[in-house]
Amino acid sequence: MATMKEISETNVQPFAQIPMQAVGPFKLIGDVETDDLMVPMATYETPLWPSVARGARVAARAGGIRVTLIDERMTRSILLQAKHAGIAAQRLAEIKSRQEDIQEVVSQSSRFAKLLEMNSQVVGNLIYLRFEFHTGDASGHNMATNAADKIIPWLLAEYPDLDYVSISANYCTDKKVSAVNGILGRGKYVVCETTIPAKLCQRYLKTTPQALVDLHIKKDLIGSIVSGGLRTANAHVANMLLGFYLATGQDAANIVEGSQAINHAEVTPEGDLYFSTTLPNLIVGSVGNGKGLDFVLENLRLLGCADDSLPAGGNARRLACIAGATAFCGELSLLAAQTNPGELMQAHIKLERQHKA
Amino acid sequence: MATMKEISETNVQPFAQIPMQAVGPFKLIGDVETDDLMVPMATYETPLWPSVARGARVAARAGGIRVTLIDERMTRSILLQAKHAGIAAQRLAEIKSRQEDIQEVVSQSSRFAKLLEMNSQVVGNLIYLRFEFHTGDASGHNMATNAADKIIPWLLAEYPDLDYVSISANYCTDKKVSAVNGILGRGKYVVCETTIPAKLCQRYLKTTPQALVDLHIKKDLIGSIVSGGLRTANAHVANMLLGFYLATGQDAANIVEGSQAINHAEVTPEGDLYFSTTLPNLIVGSVGNGKGLDFVLENLRLLGCADDSLPAGGNARRLACIAGATAFCGELSLLAAQTNPGELMQAHIKLERQHKA
Amino acid sequence: MATMKEISETNVQPFAQIPMQAVGPFKLIGDVETDDLMVPMATYETPLWPSVARGARVAARAGGIRVTLIDERMTRSILLQAKHAGIAAQRLAEIKSRQEDIQEVVSQSSRFAKLLEMNSQVVGNLIYLRFEFHTGDASGHNMATNAADKIIPWLLAEYPDLDYVSISANYCTDKKVSAVNGILGRGKYVVCETTIPAKLCQRYLKTTPQALVDLHIKKDLIGSIVSGGLRTANAHVANMLLGFYLATGQDAANIVEGSQAINHAEVTPEGDLYFSTTLPNLIVGSVGNGKGLDFVLENLRLLGCADDSLPAGGNARRLACIAGATAFCGELSLLAAQTNPGELMQAHIKLERQHKA
Amino acid sequence: MATMKEISETNVQPFAQIPMQAVGPFKLIGDVETDDLMVPMATYETPLWPSVARGARVAARAGGIRVTLIDERMTRSILLQAKHAGIAAQRLAEIKSRQEDIQEVVSQSSRFAKLLEMNSQVVGNLIYLRFEFHTGDASGHNMATNAADKIIPWLLAEYPDLDYVSISANYCTDKKVSAVNGILGRGKYVVCETTIPAKLCQRYLKTTPQALVDLHIKKDLIGSIVSGGLRTANAHVANMLLGFYLATGQDAANIVEGSQAINHAEVTPEGDLYFSTTLPNLIVGSVGNGKGLDFVLENLRLLGCADDSLPAGGNARRLACIAGATAFCGELSLLAAQTNPGELMQAHIKLERQHKA
Repeated sequence: MATMKEISETNVQPFAQIPMQAVGPFKLIGDVETDDLMVPMATYETPLWPSVARGARVAARAGGIRVTLIDERMTRSILLQAKHAGIAAQRLAEIKSRQEDIQEVVSQSSRFAKLLEMNSQVVGNLIYLRFEFHTGDASGHNMATNAADKIIPWLLAEYPDLDYVSISANYCTDKKVSAVNGILGRGKYVVCETTIPAKLCQRYLKTTPQALVDLHIKKDLIGSIVSGGLRTANAHVANMLLGFYLATGQDAANIVEGSQAINHAEVTPEGDLYFSTTLPNLIVGSVGNGKGLDFVLENLRLLGCADDSLPAGGNARRLACIAGATAFCGELSLLAAQTNPGELMQAHIKLERQHKA
Repeated sequence: MATMKEISETNVQPFAQIPMQAVGPFKLIGDVETDDLMVPMATYETPLWPSVARGARVAARAGGIRVTLIDERMTRSILLQAKHAGIAAQRLAEIKSRQEDIQEVVSQSSRFAKLLEMNSQVVGNLIYLRFEFHTGDASGHNMATNAADKIIPWLLAEYPDLDYVSISANYCTDKKVSAVNGILGRGKYVVCETTIPAKLCQRYLKTTPQALVDLHIKKDLIGSIVSGGLRTANAHVANMLLGFYLATGQDAANIVEGSQAINHAEVTPEGDLYFSTTLPNLIVGSVGNGKGLDFVLENLRLLGCADDSLPAGGNARRLACIAGATAFCGELSLLAAQTNPGELMQAHIKLERQHKA
Repeated sequence: MATMKEISETNVQPFAQIPMQAVGPFKLIGDVETDDLMVPMATYETPLWPSVARGARVAARAGGIRVTLIDERMTRSILLQAKHAGIAAQRLAEIKSRQEDIQEVVSQSSRFAKLLEMNSQVVGNLIYLRFEFHTGDASGHNMATNAADKIIPWLLAEYPDLDYVSISANYCTDKKVSAVNGILGRGKYVVCETTIPAKLCQRYLKTTPQALVDLHIKKDLIGSIVSGGLRTANAHVANMLLGFYLATGQDAANIVEGSQAINHAEVTPEGDLYFSTTLPNLIVGSVGNGKGLDFVLENLRLLGCADDSLPAGGNARRLACIAGATAFCGELSLLAAQTNPGELMQAHIKLERQHKA
Repeated sequence: MATMKEISETNVQPFAQIPMQAVGPFKLIGDVETDDLMVPMATYETPLWPSVARGARVAARAGGIRVTLIDERMTRSILLQAKHAGIAAQRLAEIKSRQEDIQEVVSQSSRFAKLLEMNSQVVGNLIYLRFEFHTGDASGHNMATNAADKIIPWLLAEYPDLDYVSISANYCTDKKVSAVNGILGRGKYVVCETTIPAKLCQRYLKTTPQALVDLHIKKDLIGSIVSGGLRTANAHVANMLLGFYLATGQDAANIVEGSQAINHAEVTPEGDLYFSTTLPNLIVGSVGNGKGLDFVLENLRLLGCADDSLPAGGNARRLACIAGATAFCGELSLLAAQTNPGELMQAHIKLERQHKA
C-alpha cells in the first residue's frame, strides 16, 4: 500500500473547508430535554440553515420536539460456507445456542462490545450470519469488525466443516440501501414528533395542517412508492444528516441508510398538525474516527455530547436524538414550503443571494 | 425565515475542516484519457486513501481504467391532480405531445436547460410527471427546479382542469433510495472497467481472480439481495463518492442514489480478472453551489475539470468519469482485502496508526 | 424431454377443479361501460366472493366504477455481451436508431406484434435490452419471446462484436417482483375509482370515509413501506386477480407483478369517500393458452370479451378493465371490514360455514 | 353481504377445470427421503410439465435433490396507536415481556397455534406488532388471524392508552411483495440443492456447468438487480408454485411471496454443477381451506402428505419440501434451455403442439 508520505506529496489543501453554521434554537423533550440548543451543520447547500431553523422555531413554539430512542445496535455480518444446506442449518442452530461463548470471544476484542443477537440467512450452502452489538459511545463500525475478526477464527476452529468466505457479507449492511437495517436494526432508532397548532402553522410555516398532511401523503408516501423506493418516505432527510454528520465528525457515508426515514403526519381532531419523522438507522458516535479534531470536539461540547458524567453510550444516544430532531425540522420546513406554488424556488434564490452577499 | 445575521451569532467555526488528500496516480482510458491523475478525497475515514490508491495503481499497471459515459440528465417531477383518472390520462397525452411548447417555457428559466423527455405515473387521479433535462456543466438541481417552477403555472393555465399539488413529488427522486433513478436515469451514467492479469492481482492485491470473483458474487450480489437491497451490488461505493464529492464541492447528499452502483466481475478465458463498477446515478457538476470556494476551484483544476475550452457539459462529464474511477478503485481494493481473512482489520489498524503518527 | 405419453401414465385426475362463482353485479363507466355484469372467480378462498360482491354493490349504487386504461404493452429483455462498455454503448445507440429494421424482423414472427420501444441497461460489458410490443388480444408472452427469438440472430449478424448470453434477462420481467414493470410498463395499466357518499359507506360498508382513509394510509401505505414493500400499497389484490385469472384462462403466475397495485383514497370536501385502485401490470389476454377450454370461452363470453366485432386488442383491454374493477371491489370491501375490530374474523367464519352448508 | 343463494343464481360452471398432470419421478434426500415420487401440477401452461420432469430426471440421476427445511412460522401483524412514541416504546417493551400471558390468550383461539416471537416497528405514534406462530399442518392464515382477534381486545384492556387501528397492518405480510417475510420469516424456509456431474449436464440438459452458472449470474442475479427486484433471483419459480399449489389445494395467491426465491449455482472444483434454489417463503398446509376436495385429498395422498402417523406439522413440512423441489427442477431446466439460443422457443412450440395433438 501507499505510504502516507507518498500520498502527501501531492499539493492539495490538507482540509476541505465546508461552510458551517449553528442553527436553532431547538427545544427538545422526551429522551433528551433541552432548551435553546444550537445545532451546527456543515454543508455546501447553505439555504438549508434557515430552513431547518424555521422548523426548529415553530416546533419550539409548539412545546418542543419529542424525541424517543427506540433501539441501538451496530452490526457486522460474516459469510461462511458449508458442504450443503443441511450442515449449514445444523451448525447455525449450534452457533446460535452459544451466545455466551461468543460473547467471551468478543470481549477479547473490546471491553465495550456486547453481543445482543445473531440473525442469519441460508442461501444454498452459504451462511450469512449477522452479529448485533452494543458499542457504547462509538458508532461501532470498527468495534464490530474487530469482534467479527475474532469470532471467525474461533468459529472455524470449533466447526471445521465450515469455510471462510468473507468478513463482511453485505447482510450487515454498511452504507448501502437495504431493508435489513430497518427491520432488524442498525444504529440508533429515533422518533421525533410534535403537534403544532393550526395558528402556528399559519404564522411560521405559511400553510395549514390539512395542506401539509395532504402533500405529505401524495409526495412522501405515494410518490416514494411509485419511485420504487424502499423503506423511505421523506423529502430530504439526507441533507440534514449530511450537514449534522460533517459538523460532528461522523462517517457521513452512513447517510445512505440514514436517508431511509419515514414521515407520518395527520390532522388531529382539534384541527392541529401532528408531524413526525422516524429515523430507524441513525449511525452516530461521540468517540472514534473524526472526533479528535478541534472543531468537532467543540461542536460535541456545544451539543452536550462530550459529557463524561453520562453513562456509557449516553453521549451517542443524545447525539442521535439531536440528529433526528435536525432532520425533523428540515422535513417540516420543506414540506410546508412545497404546499405553496413558487415558494420553494423563491426562498432558494433569496437565501443564496443573502448568503453570497 | 431566519436572517443570516441571526444565524451567524452562534460561535461555531465558519468551516468544518475535513481531512483531504490527493490519491493516485490514476490512468484513465476511454471517454477520458489521462495518465498520472491525482484525485483529491476529503473524509474522516482516512484509511480510504491508501486503499483507493492501491486500486488505482494496479489498474494503471493493467493498462488503465476504461471509463464510458452512457447517459446524462437531471430530473424534477411535479405532482398535479385531475378530477378523475380519465381526465388525467387525456391531459397527460396532450402534455407529452407538446414537448416543443414546454421547451420554450423552460428556456425562459435558463439558457442551458434542455428538456429531453417526460415520464409519468398515474395513481388514482394523481399525475406524477417527471421532466428530464440536460443541464450543461451544472449538476442541475436548481436548474430543474427552476424550470419546473415555470412549467407549472403554464400547465395550470393551459389545462384548467388540473390542480397543483407539489413542485416535487418524490418521483424525481433526489437524495432518496429509488429504482426510478436507475431505470429512467438521473445524473451521469458511468461504467468503469479493467482486465487485470492474474500476476498483477497477486502482486498488488494479494489475491487471485477466482477468489475475488467468488467473493464478489457471494457478497455484492447474493449478500445485497438477501439484505433486501435495491439496485445495489457493491461493497462501499458511498465512501469513495463522499470523499470525492466533498473535495470537489458537490452536494454530497447525492451519495444516496450514487451508492446504488453495481459491480460485475468475471474470470476471463485467459484466467485474468475482469472487474467493473457501473454507476448509473453520479450527480456531479463543475459549476454551481460550492464550486466557488478556493480549494474546490483548485481541485477542479487539478482534475482538469475547470477547462473553458471544453464544450458545454464537458467538464461535468469528465468529473463524473473520474468520480466513477475513484469508486471503482476503492471497490477493487476492498474486495481484494476481504478475500483474505484478517487483512481488512489489520490494514485498518495499521493505517489509522500511521495517519495519527 | 419426457413425452406426453410417459407423463400421462400417472393416474391423477386430468383437471384440478377449483370452486367458481360469478359475483356482482358490476356497473362500470369510463373506458368500459356496462351494467349488471357478473364476474366469474375461481378460488379455494370462497369468502372472497361475497366480499367482492359487497364492493361491487356499493360502487354500483354510487354510480359505478370508473375504469381508465392508461397503457398496454408486453415485454421481453434479451442479454448480450460486448468486449467492453464503450462498444456496448455504441452498439446500443445504433440498435435503438433502427426501430424500423427491427420491426421488420418482428413482423416475420407474428402479424400482431408491433415494436413500441426499446429500453436498456448497461452493466460492465453486459447489455440488457428490453423490447416492448403491442400484442393484440394475446397477453403476449409467447409473441414477445418469439419476436426476440428472431431479433437475436439478426442482431448477432448485424453486430458481430456482440455475443449472445440469454433470450430472457430478468429485465423483462416475468412473474417476478420488480420496479421495472411499473416504471416502464408491462401488461395493461388500469385505474379504477369511485366516489362513495358517506351514507352509502355506512349502509353497505359499515364504516365512514374518514375511518377507511385513515386505515388505508396506516396499513396500505405506511404498513407496506415498513414491510420493505416495493411499489405495492394494497390489502389483497393478489386474491382477486388469482380468482379472475383462473376463471378466464390466464397465466395466473402473473399475479406476482399484478399484486404490485396501489390504492389511493381520500375524504372529499363534501365528506364522501374517494377510493381508487391503480393496477399498472395487469397481464391478461382473451386469446392464447388456456382460452380454448369450454368453461373459459363461456366466461369470456359472459364478460363480453369474446366479441369479434371489437378492434384488435379490444377484448383484452375490456378484460383488463374488468379484472381491475374486481380487484378494486375486493380492496374496498376488505379495508372497510378491517376498520371494525372483530368484523374480519366473524365474516370469515360465517361465510365459510354458509358455504360448507 | 350477498347470500350464497344470490351468487349461485348466475350460471357459470361450478368449477374451473385446470389441466393437471403428475410429473417426475422425483428423488429427494435430506429432510424428506423418497424415490420415484410423482408430483401433480395444475396449470394452463402445460409446457411446464416436461420441463419440470427433465429437471427431476437429471437430479435423480445425480443422486437426488437434497431438501433442507430451515424454519417454519405463520404471521399476522396488528396496528395500534399511542398518544406519542414515548408511550408506544414503553408499552411495546412491556408487551414483549409478557409472551406467556399472550400465549395463554392465543390458546383460547386454537390448540395448535403457538406464539414464537413478536417483532415490531414504531412509526411516529403507530405500533406495527408482528406475531409469529407455529400452526401445525395448517398454512395458518386463519389461525393467525383468529389469534390476533383474541389478542387485540386483551391488549386494549391491559393497556388502555393504546387504540385499535387494524387487525392486519401489512407488516405481516400476506400475498404482497416485501422484505420482511424473507428476513423475519413467513411460511416454510426450504433449500433444495444438487451437484450434477458435467456429463449428466450435457446428456440431460444439453449444456455445461460453466454455461449454466454464467447465465445464472447474469440473468438471475444481475438481471434481477437491474430490474429493481427485491429479494428475488430466479427465472420462473412462480410458475411451478402455481401448478403445485392449485394441485394441492393451497391458497395460490401466496405465490407472490413464494416467488421471492434465490438461486445459487457454481462450478465445483471437479468441474461439476452445484445448483440450488432457496425458497424462504413457502406457504403451504395439508389441512384447511381447499384440502377437503376429492382430487386434492388424492394428490396429498400421492405425495405422502396425508399421513396420520406423522407428528403435528409433519405433513405440511413434507409438502413444503416437495414444493421446493418442484420449483428447483423447473429452474434448473429453464436455465439450461436458455443457455442455448433458440432452444426455449422451439421447445415451447413443439410441446404445445404435442399437447394439443
